[in-house]
Amino acid sequence: MTADLPRSLAAEALGTMLLVAAVVGSGIMADRLTDDPALALLGNTLPTGAILVVLITVLGPVSGAHMNPAVTLVFALRHEMPARTALAYGAAQVAGGIAGTVLAHAMFGLAPVDPSGTARTGADQWLAEGVAAFGLLLTIVGGLRAAPAAVPWLVGLYITAAYWFTASTSFANPAVTIARALTDTFAGIRPADVPAFVAAQVAGALAGAALGRWLFAPDGGRR
Amino acid sequence: MTADLPRSLAAEALGTMLLVAAVVGSGIMADRLTDDPALALLGNTLPTGAILVVLITVLGPVSGAHMNPAVTLVFALRHEMPARTALAYGAAQVAGGIAGTVLAHAMFGLAPVDPSGTARTGADQWLAEGVAAFGLLLTIVGGLRAAPAAVPWLVGLYITAAYWFTASTSFANPAVTIARALTDTFAGIRPADVPAFVAAQVAGALAGAALGRWLFAPDGGRR
Amino acid sequence: MTADLPRSLAAEALGTMLLVAAVVGSGIMADRLTDDPALALLGNTLPTGAILVVLITVLGPVSGAHMNPAVTLVFALRHEMPARTALAYGAAQVAGGIAGTVLAHAMFGLAPVDPSGTARTGADQWLAEGVAAFGLLLTIVGGLRAAPAAVPWLVGLYITAAYWFTASTSFANPAVTIARALTDTFAGIRPADVPAFVAAQVAGALAGAALGRWLFAPDGGRR
Amino acid sequence: MTADLPRSLAAEALGTMLLVAAVVGSGIMADRLTDDPALALLGNTLPTGAILVVLITVLGPVSGAHMNPAVTLVFALRHEMPARTALAYGAAQVAGGIAGTVLAHAMFGLAPVDPSGTARTGADQWLAEGVAAFGLLLTIVGGLRAAPAAVPWLVGLYITAAYWFTASTSFANPAVTIARALTDTFAGIRPADVPAFVAAQVAGALAGAALGRWLFAPDGGRR
Repeated sequence: MTADLPRSLAAEALGTMLLVAAVVGSGIMADRLTDDPALALLGNTLPTGAILVVLITVLGPVSGAHMNPAVTLVFALRHEMPARTALAYGAAQVAGGIAGTVLAHAMFGLAPVDPSGTARTGADQWLAEGVAAFGLLLTIVGGLRAAPAAVPWLVGLYITAAYWFTASTSFANPAVTIARALTDTFAGIRPADVPAFVAAQVAGALAGAALGRWLFAPDGGRR
Repeated sequence: MTADLPRSLAAEALGTMLLVAAVVGSGIMADRLTDDPALALLGNTLPTGAILVVLITVLGPVSGAHMNPAVTLVFALRHEMPARTALAYGAAQVAGGIAGTVLAHAMFGLAPVDPSGTARTGADQWLAEGVAAFGLLLTIVGGLRAAPAAVPWLVGLYITAAYWFTASTSFANPAVTIARALTDTFAGIRPADVPAFVAAQVAGALAGAALGRWLFAPDGGRR
Repeated sequence: MTADLPRSLAAEALGTMLLVAAVVGSGIMADRLTDDPALALLGNTLPTGAILVVLITVLGPVSGAHMNPAVTLVFALRHEMPARTALAYGAAQVAGGIAGTVLAHAMFGLAPVDPSGTARTGADQWLAEGVAAFGLLLTIVGGLRAAPAAVPWLVGLYITAAYWFTASTSFANPAVTIARALTDTFAGIRPADVPAFVAAQVAGALAGAALGRWLFAPDGGRR
Repeated sequence: MTADLPRSLAAEALGTMLLVAAVVGSGIMADRLTDDPALALLGNTLPTGAILVVLITVLGPVSGAHMNPAVTLVFALRHEMPARTALAYGAAQVAGGIAGTVLAHAMFGLAPVDPSGTARTGADQWLAEGVAAFGLLLTIVGGLRAAPAAVPWLVGLYITAAYWFTASTSFANPAVTIARALTDTFAGIRPADVPAFVAAQVAGALAGAALGRWLFAPDGGRR
C-alpha cells in the first residue's frame, strides 16, 4: 500500500510541514485577532483538527501519514517497518516540522525562526503530555482495528478534544514539539522544556500502544 | 463481536475515564481561559462531542462502548446482556468515571477529588435531564437500526446539541454524574443533587428506549 | 422503506418537536450565557446543525424525516406521497413544532408559550428566507441523487451555513417558523411576520425543487 | 459521469454563486454581530467550510463542482477537459461569483456592488495565497486518489483550516477573489490587489498539482 521510500519521506516531510504550518500559523492568526485566550485556543484547535483529517487521508496511502516520531517508533517496535526506515521517517518529520515553522513565519512576516520563551514545564504538564500521547496511540491502534477508513477523522477529533482536556494543550508529537520550540508565538514552547515533553510523549505513546495491543487484539487478548 | 469479560470491563472503565477526563478537563481549561460562560460551554462542548465519536468507534467492537449505566440498563432489560454482566459494566463505568475526575485534576494541578458546590436542582433541571437521556436513547436505538456504523457520530452530535438545548447541559449519564460530583470546577454538580439527576436520567432513558422500540421496530411496530 | 402511517406521523411530530426544542432551547441557553450576539448565534447554530444530522438519520427510514411542510409539499407535488398523507404530515409537523417550544420553555422555566415581539420583516428578510429554502431543497434533491446516505449530513451542514449567510438566519421551515412565533426569546419571530416568511419559504422551496429537477435529472435534463 | 454542457455551466455558476453568497454573507453577518475579529472570522469560517461540503457533494456529479478557475485550469492542463470547455467553466464561475456578491448584498440590504477598500497586498499575503492554493490542489489531487467520495469533506476541512493558518485567510480561488473585490464588507479585497492574488493562486495551484502528480501517482511516481 505504501509507495517507494523517497516518496514516503517526501510525504512525511510535506505532511509534518503543513501540520506545523497550520498549528503555528493559526495560533498567530488567532492570537492577533482576539484578546480572549479561549477564543484563541478555539481558533487554533479547529484548523489543527481539520488539517489532520485532510493530511492523514491523502498521505495515508503514500507513507502511512505518521507525521509523528512517536507513532513511527510504535510501528517500528511492532516490526511493521524496518528500523532504518523509521529513522529516516523521524528525520523527515523533524525537518518537515521545522520547515513548517519557517513557512508560517514567512506568511505572517516574522523572522524564519525565533526560539520560544513560553515555559511549559512541571509534573502536571508532563502528565498531560503522557496522557495526550497515550490517548493518541489508543485512538490509532483501536481505529485501525475498528474502522481503518475512519482513522483520519478519529485522529482529528481526538486532537480537537485533547487541545482542551489535557493541561498542556496536547502537543503529543516530538517533531511538532521541536518545531514549536522555534516560534515565539501562541503555539511556542521554550527549547529547554522540549526534552521532558518528548520523553513524556514517548512514554505515553508506548503505554497506549501496549494497552491497545491487548485491548484491541482480535483473539481476545490471549496472543 | 464483543470480547471476553475482562477486556470488556477494561474498555468500559477506560472509556468512561477518558470521557470524564475530557468533560472535566476541558471544563477547567475553558473556565480558566475565558470570562464568557458561553465560550466556556463551547470549549466544553466540542471536546466532549469529539471524544465521544472516538471512544465509541474504537471501544464499540470491544465492549459496545456504553460508558453509561443508563445505556447498559436498557440493553440488560432488552435481554441483550445478562444482569450479572450489566452490574459489572455499571461498576466499571462508575469506577472509571471517578478515575477520570482524578486524572483531570492531576493534569490541572488540583487535589484528586473535591466535592462540587454547584447546585443543579429543581423540576426544570430534572425535566432537562429526562429529556437529555430520552433523546440519547432514541439516538442510540434509532441509530443502531438506521445506520449502525454512524452511531458514534450520532451520539457525539446528539450530546453536542444537548449541551446547549437542555437547561442542565445534558449530563445524561449516571456514572458521569457521580464523577462530576467530585470536582468543584466548571463541570461539577453538588453531591446532594446527584440522586435526582440519576433518577431523571434513568426515567428518560427507559422512556426513550420504549418509544424507540415501537418507532424503530422492523415490522411496523406490531411486535 | 417507510413505515405505517401512525408511526410516520409520530416520527414527524417527534422529530419536529426535538428540532424546535433544540433551536429554541439552545437560543435561550446561548442568550443567557453571553452578551455577544455572534457567540449566541454560534451557540444556536451548532446544536441546530448537529440535531438535524441525528434526527434525519434515525427518523429517515421511518417517515422520510421531512420535519418541514415545505419539504413535504415538494414531495407531494412530485407525486411521491398522496396529498392526504402530506396534509397529515404537515399537521404533525406543526403540532410537533409547537410542542417543541413548550418543551424548551418547560426546561428553561418559562411559561408554555409566549408570543414573540421580535420583528423579522421586509424585502431583505423575505428574500433571505426564499434563498434559504431554495438552497435547502437543492441540497435535498441534489443530495438524494448524489449521495443519499449523506443527506442528513448535507442538511445539517447547509443549515449551519445558512444560519450565517442569509440575513434572516434561515428559518426555512413553516412548522418551525410557527413554533418560533410562540417564544419571546432569541429564536422568536413576531406572529404577524409569520405569513410572509412562510410564503417566501414555499416560493423558495418550489424554485429550488424545480431547478433541482432539471439540474440533477439522470438523463441530462431532457425529461 | 458529468452532464451535458449547459447543465454543467449552470452548476458551476450556481455553485460559485452560492459559495460567494455564503462567504460574503456570513462575513457581513458576523461582522455586524460582534466586535471581536476572531469571532467574526469563526462566523465566516464555519459557513464557508460547511457550504463547500454541500455544494461539492451535490454538484460534483453534474459538473465536477470546480467552482474555481484555478482548479479548472489544472484539469484542463491534465487533458481531462477540453480548453474550450475550461474557458466556458471559467466564465460561468466568474459570472456566478459576481452574482453571489449581488445576492448577499441584496439579502443584507446593500447596494448590488460596492468595490472594496480593504488592502490585501505584499509578499507575505502573496506567499499565503500561493500556499493556500498549493494545499488546495494537493487536497483535491490526493483526495481523488485516496478517497474520492471524501473529497467534498476534505476540501471543506482544508479551507476551514486555511482560513486561519494562511495570513491571507485563504481566498485560493480567482473567481471568488474577483467577486470579493465587489463588496466593501468583511470579506472584501481592493480591486487593485486582485491581479497579484490571482497570480499567486495560479502559481500555487500549478505547483500543488505538479507535486501531487508525482506524490500520488499510482505507479510509484515513475511516470
